[in-house]
Amino acid sequence: MRIPYSELVSIFSGILRKRGMDESDSFLSARLFADASRDGVHSHGADRFPKYVETIDQGFIDVTKKAVKEQGIGLVERWDGQKGPGNINAWICTERAVELAKEHAIGIVALRNTNHWIRAGNYGIEATRHNCMAILWTNAMPNMPPWGSRDVIIGNNPVVLAVPHGASPLIVDAACSMFSYGKLEKYRAEGKLCPVDGGIDENGNVTRDPAAILLTRQLLPTGYWKGSGVAIALDLIAAALSGGLTTREVGALPIETEVSQVFIAISMEAFPDKSAIEEKISLTLEEINGASPLHDGGSVHYPGEGMKRNREESDRTGVFVRDDVWQKILALQR
Amino acid sequence: MRIPYSELVSIFSGILRKRGMDESDSFLSARLFADASRDGVHSHGADRFPKYVETIDQGFIDVTKKAVKEQGIGLVERWDGQKGPGNINAWICTERAVELAKEHAIGIVALRNTNHWIRAGNYGIEATRHNCMAILWTNAMPNMPPWGSRDVIIGNNPVVLAVPHGASPLIVDAACSMFSYGKLEKYRAEGKLCPVDGGIDENGNVTRDPAAILLTRQLLPTGYWKGSGVAIALDLIAAALSGGLTTREVGALPIETEVSQVFIAISMEAFPDKSAIEEKISLTLEEINGASPLHDGGSVHYPGEGMKRNREESDRTGVFVRDDVWQKILALQR
Repeated sequence: MRIPYSELVSIFSGILRKRGMDESDSFLSARLFADASRDGVHSHGADRFPKYVETIDQGFIDVTKKAVKEQGIGLVERWDGQKGPGNINAWICTERAVELAKEHAIGIVALRNTNHWIRAGNYGIEATRHNCMAILWTNAMPNMPPWGSRDVIIGNNPVVLAVPHGASPLIVDAACSMFSYGKLEKYRAEGKLCPVDGGIDENGNVTRDPAAILLTRQLLPTGYWKGSGVAIALDLIAAALSGGLTTREVGALPIETEVSQVFIAISMEAFPDKSAIEEKISLTLEEINGASPLHDGGSVHYPGEGMKRNREESDRTGVFVRDDVWQKILALQR
Repeated sequence: MRIPYSELVSIFSGILRKRGMDESDSFLSARLFADASRDGVHSHGADRFPKYVETIDQGFIDVTKKAVKEQGIGLVERWDGQKGPGNINAWICTERAVELAKEHAIGIVALRNTNHWIRAGNYGIEATRHNCMAILWTNAMPNMPPWGSRDVIIGNNPVVLAVPHGASPLIVDAACSMFSYGKLEKYRAEGKLCPVDGGIDENGNVTRDPAAILLTRQLLPTGYWKGSGVAIALDLIAAALSGGLTTREVGALPIETEVSQVFIAISMEAFPDKSAIEEKISLTLEEINGASPLHDGGSVHYPGEGMKRNREESDRTGVFVRDDVWQKILALQR
C-alpha cells in the first residue's frame, strides 16, 4: 500500500515515544526510516522498523542515551554512542563532522559503542545538503568469510561516498559483500538467482543460488579478494580511530551492537575554487548521463539518481509499504 | 633472471641520473621500482621502468621538478606536483601526510598535476613503517565504462588501505576495475581466461576472455555497479580536494598525466590507547590466518602477506626480472 510520508513519520514517532524516546529524537528516527522507504530502500525503511523496535524492547538499544563527545585527539573527535539508537547517533556524528568541516575544510568524527545505523545513505545525503562531500563507514558483526576461508569472521562493513550536486547528489552506499542477507532473502522468496555471483555453496563453489548462500552464510565479498581486504582494513581503521570494538569483538556479543563508525566530511564551502569544483562535478556527472548505454534502449545513471526518482514518485503517490509490514507496524502502536 | 636488489637500484638510478634527475631523487625512484619487483609486483617494477624512462624522454615527466606545497585550506594541504615524477611526488606527499599525522593524529595531503604513482603499495608500506594507517587514492585517465554503458569514460582509480602490524602490515592495493590492462595482457599471453568475470565483450556480454576485453576496453568494475560508483566518487573527491583535474579532464590530454591524488595518514602514536589498538589488530589478523581454508590444504591470508613472502625470497635469491625486460633496461644505459 501507499502511505503519505507525513503519516509514516507520525506513526513511527508515536511508536518510539511509547518506548520512552524523547520527542525530537523520535521524530528524527521516524524521519530516517520514512526517508529510506520514500527513497525506495525498503529493506532499511519500514521493513526494518519492527526489528528496530524489538531491539529497543529487548534492551539492546537504550533510547534515553545518545552519542556524546568523549575526547579530541589531534584533529580526530572520538564520540561514545552509549548504546543509544544507531541512526540517531550516526546523524549526530554526521552533523558534527559537517560542523568541523565548515571550520577546518575537513571534519573527522569516530564513533564507538553504537548500534546499527540502519540506512547508511541518509547520512551521505545529509552531508551533501550542507554542500559537503562525505566518506563514512561502519564495521559490523561477522557476516562473511575472508577470501580463501569458509569461516564467517569478517564484517561486510558498508561504506558511503557522497558528492554534492544540487538536488541530485552522487550517493554510493555499498557494503563489502556483493549482496546483503536481506537481498538474498528477497531473491530466494522470488525464486530468482542473484544477477551475479553472490556466495559460496556447501561444496566450496561460487554460486548465484540465494538459498545455497543463505545455508552456508558464505557471502562473496564485493570484487572477491578485493572486498575481503577492504572490509578487514575498514574494520581495523574504524576500531582504531574510535577506540571501539572490532568485528571480531562484536562477534563475541549476543547480538550486533557496540559497533564502530567513521564520519569524514569535506566542506565545499571551504575551498576558494568552489565554483570550479562544482563545474567539474557537473561536467563529469553529465558526461555519465550522456554516455551510450550498453544495451539499446538503456540509460546510464550514477549512484543516487535512482533514489531521487523513487522519492519523487513517493511524494506524488505516497510511500510504498508492504501490507504485511504495515500490519506489523500498526500492531506496535498498541 | 635474478638480479641482486642493490644492483637493480644502482642500474635504475644510473639511467635516471643520465636523464638529469638529481642523485637523491634518482636513488629514491630507483628504489621504488626495485621494491615493487622485490615484492613480486613486476608489472609496476622492472617491467614498467622502460615506459617510465620513455615518458621522461618524451618530456611528459619533468625530472627537474617535484611536488611543492601550494596552499593550506583548513586541515587540508594542497600540493602541486609540477608534472614531476609521479612516484617521487607520491612519496613526498606520503611523508608529509605522516608528518602531519604525527602532529594532529591525522594528516591530509591532496596532490594535483602529478604523474602516475606507479606502484601504489609502496606508499602504504611506507606509512606503516611510521606506524601510521593510510588511506590513499589516485584518479586516472578514462580506462573503463561506468556501469550500464559501453563508453570508456571513467578511471579505475586505485586505492590503498594500510594498517601497521610490525613487519607484516595489512596492505590493500586495489583498483576499481576487477583486472588491470597489464593483468589482462598477461592472461592473454598465457592463453588463460580471467579467474572471474573481467569485462564486456563486443556483444555486450560479461566475459572472462582477456582478448575479448582488450578489444572492447570495457573493463568490468570491481563488484560491477559498486566499483563503478566508487570510482566516480573517488575521482571527484580527489579533484575537489587537490584542485586538480578529473578523469574526464585527464582524458583530454595526449597521455595520462596531471592526475589528482589524496594521501590520508593516521598516526597510531597519537592515540593514548595505542597498545590496545595494536592488540586488536593482532588478534584480528591472527584470527584470519587461523581460519579454516575453503579448500583442503589451502591457507588463509590477509592482503600484504604475499608481498612479504616474495620480498623474503628476493632477498635470498635476488629479484626476479624477465630476460627481455632486463635487456630493455640495459639498453637504456647507453
